[in-house]
Amino acid sequence: MSQIKAYSASASKARVLPTEIERRPVGTNDVQIAIEHCGVCHTDIHFVNNDWGMTHYPVVPGHEIVGRVTEVGSAVSNFQVGDRAAIGCLVDSCGVCSNCEKGLEQYCLNGFTATYNSETQDPGGFTYGGYSQSIVAKESFVLKVPDSLNGPGIAPLLCAGITTYSPLKNWKIGPESKVGVIGLGGLGHMGVKFSHALGAHTTMITSSEQKGEDARLLGADEVLLSSSVDALVQEAGSFDFLLNTIPVNHDLTPYLELLKTNGTMCVVGAVEPLSQVNAAQLIFGRRSLSGSLIGGIAETQEMLNFCGEKNILSEVEVIRMDEINDAYTRMQKNQVKYRFVLDLGSLN
Amino acid sequence: MSQIKAYSASASKARVLPTEIERRPVGTNDVQIAIEHCGVCHTDIHFVNNDWGMTHYPVVPGHEIVGRVTEVGSAVSNFQVGDRAAIGCLVDSCGVCSNCEKGLEQYCLNGFTATYNSETQDPGGFTYGGYSQSIVAKESFVLKVPDSLNGPGIAPLLCAGITTYSPLKNWKIGPESKVGVIGLGGLGHMGVKFSHALGAHTTMITSSEQKGEDARLLGADEVLLSSSVDALVQEAGSFDFLLNTIPVNHDLTPYLELLKTNGTMCVVGAVEPLSQVNAAQLIFGRRSLSGSLIGGIAETQEMLNFCGEKNILSEVEVIRMDEINDAYTRMQKNQVKYRFVLDLGSLN
Repeated sequence: MSQIKAYSASASKARVLPTEIERRPVGTNDVQIAIEHCGVCHTDIHFVNNDWGMTHYPVVPGHEIVGRVTEVGSAVSNFQVGDRAAIGCLVDSCGVCSNCEKGLEQYCLNGFTATYNSETQDPGGFTYGGYSQSIVAKESFVLKVPDSLNGPGIAPLLCAGITTYSPLKNWKIGPESKVGVIGLGGLGHMGVKFSHALGAHTTMITSSEQKGEDARLLGADEVLLSSSVDALVQEAGSFDFLLNTIPVNHDLTPYLELLKTNGTMCVVGAVEPLSQVNAAQLIFGRRSLSGSLIGGIAETQEMLNFCGEKNILSEVEVIRMDEINDAYTRMQKNQVKYRFVLDLGSLN
Repeated sequence: MSQIKAYSASASKARVLPTEIERRPVGTNDVQIAIEHCGVCHTDIHFVNNDWGMTHYPVVPGHEIVGRVTEVGSAVSNFQVGDRAAIGCLVDSCGVCSNCEKGLEQYCLNGFTATYNSETQDPGGFTYGGYSQSIVAKESFVLKVPDSLNGPGIAPLLCAGITTYSPLKNWKIGPESKVGVIGLGGLGHMGVKFSHALGAHTTMITSSEQKGEDARLLGADEVLLSSSVDALVQEAGSFDFLLNTIPVNHDLTPYLELLKTNGTMCVVGAVEPLSQVNAAQLIFGRRSLSGSLIGGIAETQEMLNFCGEKNILSEVEVIRMDEINDAYTRMQKNQVKYRFVLDLGSLN
């Protein structure tokens, strides 16, 4: 396998810059994909900056990958050269633990192999992600893209999409449910779309009137301004489920109060210590504070198929690879509606 | 109705002292009970001290009440004079809200009437609890005591019992479950008994080796010393359910790590702000932090019947009414195995 073009961050951290990487040869069960689009996730920035202290430099970010199959191994049966294919946050897992057996590879008890920054036998010693011309992965971790879906808005489904779809399904959201989506960014805008598509009464919960109006265009039935104490009191005890996509620590108190008896608030945005929880809010109402991580491979395929049926795509702004550092800056200022997607054609 | 003897705390707070109170006349649907035993709950101390800023003095505590029926209203059909009867934490609720309709009176959307310190039409203007010779309550909030249960160990079932039984049932604990009970006091010792009786593999989680040994006598299969990092690491990711009975704020981190994927830790002890929650522990494992409040009337009766079948009683130390203030002091020093029960005969 020859060198391919990519963008990586080195130990100097702050920026991703052009580089060359080597991909492993296509093995018996492997699929090689020429990457067309790759979504830009907040996680990418965290890894570039080593915010979580676990980055192995050089890191090639990107785990919202869509492209076309360019080569398949001899044992591959589900993909042919020319097919569209996608890869999300996972490229391997142990396959034998009780969670993998249930299709919960994202909770693999032996640790899944992430699409980037995970130890691997591949050249480089760590997986390299989608900020690159191509990728090679095990067939069983490669997703099919429904024919009815087209364009760069597919890519963010692979992380932002499944991260919001999976908890809505796990907590059995449907037409009888009243759902609040907290925060309108990459995750939140997909949460609104999925909650609406699942038939739930969907409320956008945001501190911004403008975001509230934007959310209506995405399918929200109502807007609840979190900056208004009166509005929060009015809606207290009325939600079955809250999908909390706020990406940083915040006060949980006003949101927990919105839940009905037996209601759940699921955190998917902030992977960090959250402010104290008032146990009384949980006890007086048998409420739950929960979390959820992306989704398993089968569920990710189910989500893509659901998007195909319902014609759901992410709202995106397409950028060239050499615009990535500016994009990071804008993401940190919350200046994107709602996801940047890299056009990897710009790397050629 | 003439005056009856009771013990109450006045605005001077620190102690409960002899007093006289008036009970309402026995109405059409009422049952009057001569109280034989009343358990002493930590909540009683909180109300006596006005720790939660909601005490209406004089307060007559006590919501673990067992006695004999001395009078019934003309419409009462389930109780006769001479029957044993019990009252827990609730004596009324709206009866028409969606929670009451489901038998979840403890989550009554219009606010249940607590056995003491709740506003009422009764003499005094607020309900008076079980530190008294007798009580009058609506038949529909009076429980039956199974014939097979005897002695002062029945009383704590009405609060400590149902508080631990209800979450174990709600989270469907059974022979396939691995349950950890955190903390061994009034609640914890009932949690161990119920978890064991429901067939779950039951681990006592405590910082005290002695409490661990004590818990084995109550039915715990194993002991996990929370003071041992090695032991905690060894058991990480192995519990389906944790019943957290610690009565004060504490670090949740070591306990959340013990949960399996999809596991739940239910807080029943600490009704206060808890230390920060690490969202990553919830997200990487789809874990939940929940709370639960006592139980509804039907479930409380179910719990008493279950205790009758399995011969489950609380472990208690019986005290005279005039020993109550010393008992509070000992409770605050954690010097009781596991619940004080007042012999109300000592009031005569």
